[in-house]
Amino acid sequence: MLGNFTYHNPTKLYFGEDSLQYLKDELKNCGNNILLVYGGGSIKKSGLYDEITAILRDAGKTVAEVSGVMPNPTVDKLNEGVKIARDSKTDFILAVGGGSVCDYSKAVSVSVNCGDDPWEKYYIRFEEPTCDIIPVGCVLTMAGTGSEMNGGAVITNHATKQKIGHVFGDNVMPKFSILNPKYTMTLPKYQMTAGIYDIMNHICEQYFSGDDDNTSDYISEGLMRGLIVASRKAVKDPTDYEARSNIMWTATWALNTLVAKGKSTDWMVHMLGQAVGAYTDATHGMTLAAVSLPYYRYIMKDGVKKFARFAAEVWGISRSGKTDEELAEAGLDAMESWMKELGLVMNISELGADENMIEGIADATIILDGGYKLLDRSDVVKILKTSL
Amino acid sequence: MLGNFTYHNPTKLYFGEDSLQYLKDELKNCGNNILLVYGGGSIKKSGLYDEITAILRDAGKTVAEVSGVMPNPTVDKLNEGVKIARDSKTDFILAVGGGSVCDYSKAVSVSVNCGDDPWEKYYIRFEEPTCDIIPVGCVLTMAGTGSEMNGGAVITNHATKQKIGHVFGDNVMPKFSILNPKYTMTLPKYQMTAGIYDIMNHICEQYFSGDDDNTSDYISEGLMRGLIVASRKAVKDPTDYEARSNIMWTATWALNTLVAKGKSTDWMVHMLGQAVGAYTDATHGMTLAAVSLPYYRYIMKDGVKKFARFAAEVWGISRSGKTDEELAEAGLDAMESWMKELGLVMNISELGADENMIEGIADATIILDGGYKLLDRSDVVKILKTSL
Repeated sequence: MLGNFTYHNPTKLYFGEDSLQYLKDELKNCGNNILLVYGGGSIKKSGLYDEITAILRDAGKTVAEVSGVMPNPTVDKLNEGVKIARDSKTDFILAVGGGSVCDYSKAVSVSVNCGDDPWEKYYIRFEEPTCDIIPVGCVLTMAGTGSEMNGGAVITNHATKQKIGHVFGDNVMPKFSILNPKYTMTLPKYQMTAGIYDIMNHICEQYFSGDDDNTSDYISEGLMRGLIVASRKAVKDPTDYEARSNIMWTATWALNTLVAKGKSTDWMVHMLGQAVGAYTDATHGMTLAAVSLPYYRYIMKDGVKKFARFAAEVWGISRSGKTDEELAEAGLDAMESWMKELGLVMNISELGADENMIEGIADATIILDGGYKLLDRSDVVKILKTSL
Repeated sequence: MLGNFTYHNPTKLYFGEDSLQYLKDELKNCGNNILLVYGGGSIKKSGLYDEITAILRDAGKTVAEVSGVMPNPTVDKLNEGVKIARDSKTDFILAVGGGSVCDYSKAVSVSVNCGDDPWEKYYIRFEEPTCDIIPVGCVLTMAGTGSEMNGGAVITNHATKQKIGHVFGDNVMPKFSILNPKYTMTLPKYQMTAGIYDIMNHICEQYFSGDDDNTSDYISEGLMRGLIVASRKAVKDPTDYEARSNIMWTATWALNTLVAKGKSTDWMVHMLGQAVGAYTDATHGMTLAAVSLPYYRYIMKDGVKKFARFAAEVWGISRSGKTDEELAEAGLDAMESWMKELGLVMNISELGADENMIEGIADATIILDGGYKLLDRSDVVKILKTSL
C-alpha cells in the first residue's frame, strides 16, 4: 500500500545529443571556483574534457581538478578531494563521468565543510550533513547507477574492507545533470552490460518487497520491460541511439526515489555485491549480477506471489497450468537466460573471489530488513557459496 | 526516440493520510498574506476548511478567501480572484480542492502582477508570464487532473464559448502539494470515475503518438495497467484506501511531464472534450469519455501498430491469430467495456450537447498536430456526430 511519504526531486535534467549546450546557462548560477572531478582519463580521449574546460574558461571560472576517481572511490581519494576543494575554496563541483565520479562528488560535497571525519560520520554512524553542502552538477558518461538524480554516494574503505553507500537527502542531489546518450557509446561492452544489470537490479531491489498492490510496482514493471527490449538491441548494436537513450533514461528513473514510494525495499543484493566489491574491487554491476540469482532463488519461496507476478508481467510467461512456484522459477530462469545473453558475470569466482574469502565477505555484508526474508549470517554464507 | 528535452519538476509532494501535518512547516517559507482558494463548500462539510484555517491561524497568517471556484473556472471568476489577491496583497496562494481549484489558483498566480488582460495574454496569445508569479501550494481533494504537480491551468470563457488550457513552465508549478487519498473518498461516484477517465486519457494522449520505442511508453503502460486494476476496485468499494491511493498517485504521474518525454503527444481528445465543455459546462472527465472512442476509432488505422501494442500490453489481449487491425480493435473494445463497467458517460448527448451545437463545438475545437492523423474541420464534425 502507498503509505505516508514525501517525494521531492529538484534535480534539473538536460537530456539528448544537444544537452551539453545548457552547461553554460547553469554555470551562471554557480560560484566562481569550480572543482572539476573526473575518472581515469577517458574524457580526455573522447574530447569531452576539452569541450568542458573550454566552456568553463569562457564562463570565466577558476578551475581546480580531481582526476583519477576510481570505479570504487576510496576513503583516501575522498580525503584527497576534500583537501583540494578546501585549498581551492571550491564553491561548485562539476562531476564528469559515470556513477562513481558522481557519487564521489556528492561525498566530497558534504565533507568539505564538515568538521568531522567523513567516513566515520556518514558511513559508520550514518549521520546527516549539518554543514554547508557544496552544490554539485553532473555530466554523465555512463548509464547505470542513477547517481545523476539521487542523493546516493558509495565509498570503499580498503583498510577495513568495507564498501558502504549513504543515501543523502534532496539537498545533496545534483542541481542539474546533463545526460547525453552518445557519451555512453564509447564504453566497452563489459561496462555497458554491467550498467544495464545495475539498473535492472535497482528496480528489482525495490520491486521485490511487500505483498500489496502498489503503483510503484506497475511503474517498475514498465521500466523493466523497456529495459529488457533496449538492452537486447544495445548488445546487438551498441551504436543504436534509441536503445542507448532508453537505457540512460531508465537508469535515472530506476533509482531516483520514485519506484521506492510505498515500498519497504530490499537491497540485499547490493549489500552482498558491495561486500564482494570490497574484497575484489570488481565492477559494481557485475558483483550484483554474480550474487543476485543465488539470492533470489534462496528467498523465492518467501515471496513466491511476487516472483510469480514478475514472471508473468515482466517476462511475459503464461500463468496457465503453472503453480505460483513453477511460474516464479520460470521467471528467474528467464532472467538468467537474459543475463547470459548479455554476457554478464554469473559467479563471484570470475570476479576474483574464492572459498577462503567467503567468511570475510559475509562479515562485510550488512544485513538489511525489508525484503521477503530476513537473512542471518549463515544464510549469507550459503548464498555466497552458491555464488562461487 | 527520446530526443532532446529538459525535465525539471520541483514540486514537493506530501502523500498519505498524515500529509496535512506538513502544511505547518511549508507555511514557514511563505509570506504572511495567504489567499485561500476553494470550491463550492464541500471542504466546509468535510471539516477540512476548519482544519486548514486553524493551521493558518496558528501560523499567524492573514487570510483572504476566494470561494465558489466552479468545476470549469471562468474568466470572470479569474478576474475576481485577481482583484481579491491585489486588494489583500497576497503573497501566497493556498488551493484547497480538486484540479479546477488548483488550475484556477495557478491562473491567478500569473495574473495578479501582470499588467495585461490575462485571458488575452495567456489564453489567446499564449504568452509566457513576464511578471512576478505568486507561489502556489495545494491541498488536493480529488484525483484526476494532475494539476498538483504541473503548470497547467484551464480557463473557460462563456462569452466566447472557449475552454482553453495553458501549460505554464516549472516556475508556475505548485511549490508543494498535499495528497491525502482519504479526502477523495467523499466524492460522488460520478466525480470519482470522471477523474479516473481523465487520468486514463492523459496517459493515452501522450502514449498515442510516435512509432518509436520509447521509455515513456513503457512507463505509461505500467501506469495504465495499475490504473485499470485500481479503478475496478474503487468502483466496487470507494473506501478501498489502497485503490484510492494508487489512483491518486497515478494521476500525479500521468500528467507531470514525465510520460511526455520524447513524445510528440496528441491532445485532440482534450481539445474535443474542452470544446464540448465550453458548450455544456459538463464535468471535464466525462467530456473526454464521451468523445474519446469515436476519436480513437476514427484515427486507429493511422496508428494501427500502437493501438495493437495498446491492446496487447495494456489490456493483455493475445496477439496470436490476429492482424494488427483486429488486435487494435479488440483493444479499443476492451477499453469500451471497462469504461461502461465504470459507468462513464459514453456520448455527448447525455452531457447536454445536441445536433445543433455540432458546428459551434467544431468551431471551438482547437486542432493540434502530434497524433497519428492531423484532423481538419470536417473530421472534427464527423467525430462529434459519432459522439452524439
